[in-house]
Amino acid sequence: MKARGLPESRALAILQEELPKFGASTLVGIGDDAAVLQKSAKRLVWTIDACSEGTHFKPSWLGPEDLAHKSLHAAVSDLCAMGARPTAALVQLTLAPWLTASRLRRLAREQAAVCRALGCPIVGGNLTRGTEVQLVTTALGHLPGRPLERTRAQVGDELWLMGAVGEARLGLHALERGWENEPHFAVCVNALRRPRALVQEGLRLARTAHACLDVSDGLRRDAPRLAQSSDVRVVIEASRLERSADEAFRRAAAALGLDPLQEMLEGGEDYALLATGPSARRPRGARIIGRVERGRGAWLEAARGRTRLEGGFEH
Amino acid sequence: MKARGLPESRALAILQEELPKFGASTLVGIGDDAAVLQKSAKRLVWTIDACSEGTHFKPSWLGPEDLAHKSLHAAVSDLCAMGARPTAALVQLTLAPWLTASRLRRLAREQAAVCRALGCPIVGGNLTRGTEVQLVTTALGHLPGRPLERTRAQVGDELWLMGAVGEARLGLHALERGWENEPHFAVCVNALRRPRALVQEGLRLARTAHACLDVSDGLRRDAPRLAQSSDVRVVIEASRLERSADEAFRRAAAALGLDPLQEMLEGGEDYALLATGPSARRPRGARIIGRVERGRGAWLEAARGRTRLEGGFEH
Repeated sequence: MKARGLPESRALAILQEELPKFGASTLVGIGDDAAVLQKSAKRLVWTIDACSEGTHFKPSWLGPEDLAHKSLHAAVSDLCAMGARPTAALVQLTLAPWLTASRLRRLAREQAAVCRALGCPIVGGNLTRGTEVQLVTTALGHLPGRPLERTRAQVGDELWLMGAVGEARLGLHALERGWENEPHFAVCVNALRRPRALVQEGLRLARTAHACLDVSDGLRRDAPRLAQSSDVRVVIEASRLERSADEAFRRAAAALGLDPLQEMLEGGEDYALLATGPSARRPRGARIIGRVERGRGAWLEAARGRTRLEGGFEH
Repeated sequence: MKARGLPESRALAILQEELPKFGASTLVGIGDDAAVLQKSAKRLVWTIDACSEGTHFKPSWLGPEDLAHKSLHAAVSDLCAMGARPTAALVQLTLAPWLTASRLRRLAREQAAVCRALGCPIVGGNLTRGTEVQLVTTALGHLPGRPLERTRAQVGDELWLMGAVGEARLGLHALERGWENEPHFAVCVNALRRPRALVQEGLRLARTAHACLDVSDGLRRDAPRLAQSSDVRVVIEASRLERSADEAFRRAAAALGLDPLQEMLEGGEDYALLATGPSARRPRGARIIGRVERGRGAWLEAARGRTRLEGGFEH
């Protein structure tokens, strides 16, 4: 039994102790076959996302608290990109032997804290045993207004970025080199371990943007998706994108000897929001990084010409 | 690239081709950050379930079609156990190298067929890469009436079984011995590969039963859960349970030299429904296998006395 790790019944007991049964809309929570929600909203937004050992993280890089934080925020980020407010989540947790009772308790405590902060209770889930830890999170949200789809970018729109891109990638570089405790990587390592779903930013975008998606796979991959979904050309202006980076990011890139612009294009897992909309209605916090034109594909426009963005980041 | 298996973009294209965008309540389906559903029902039932290579299946035992079938029915079974009708599903699919394009297409085609049969469209999901294939399915359902919880069994209730128990376990024994093509194992092997979520049975139970759960981990584990959740004693009568088995199951047990009763107690993954309710309101198809008494725990009552049911099946 010991070699197989924590028994499921013990794991369930820990989760039930640490995760509060809160949320007025939850009629039946953790412990039954399924959760029951009482919903007044008519339009539900629904997503699922995986955080897998080996593919998305190494246990030596992310602690149990980081896993709790990152997995929930990553799933909720998809709701943000639709202009929704999170309602509730379910978590399918794969238990591997290294996830001891005390680590699971740390994970569950952080889940409870994150859920409270996001207003998104975990109302149930499922436990499985495996050789590697995995958290698959499904989250439901409700829409105050219309859904913010990725198919409605219009020619003449500005291209907006909410949040930072590239920081999590630099954080990963720092971890790979064992530099995570050096002060000029603090912001970037934190961006990797504790990304933040942009709930308020998504709600603001929903009021005025034409299209939006979250940059989970990096601009190089996600900008072409936006272009293709909306059947337009997306042009990223290199100078504007570079100017959108903050000082901590620049210092970290310099310390690593990396080109900031390339890192901003390649970096995924920051969960920034990429949106388009009319200039007159640009919401607070949205930085212009380009524009939408007639045509196809996503392009990077720099002083020496345009290059097409293709391929790029896979976990 | 080849060694890493199917690229995600190609996998997504196959899924989008094979999975129809049907379902009147789906406003935004596969391809955006999240699905958007238009719901009229006020009470939603929501579950998540994993079907993982190594833990739940071996690729040599379950084909792509079986995986599609089993993963969806297993998730929907949790909705059945709450008395809900399935509405829609999302699937997080982990791609391993052995899941080639043609296998993925077979899987997606069967998903489409199962969804149609269950009235439960797949409206989105997520793709990840890994060393083993995994399908994590989250399903939403709506309740025509009240939710069928596991906490409301009453002293004096009959204990009812809908569906078979033990067949999938005998199917597994047959596969382990390479006997899957022998005719007297056909029913049991099929029960393992293509379990059926008891949608209509769950809806019938919801009208009269006091409590219900699905027997995904076997009666030995699930009957004590029912007892504990409802704070009652659950008594399974060995003679009644044995009589509930059908002829194909008995023949398969005999061919394997196994005690049918033990297999019925240990066998999980049949997705039968275990319920309790008043004798006068026993629904069609529910077989009495025992009763609910004052006390604690789940007990097996045989000619030579009572034994307590504890522990048992973990995947």
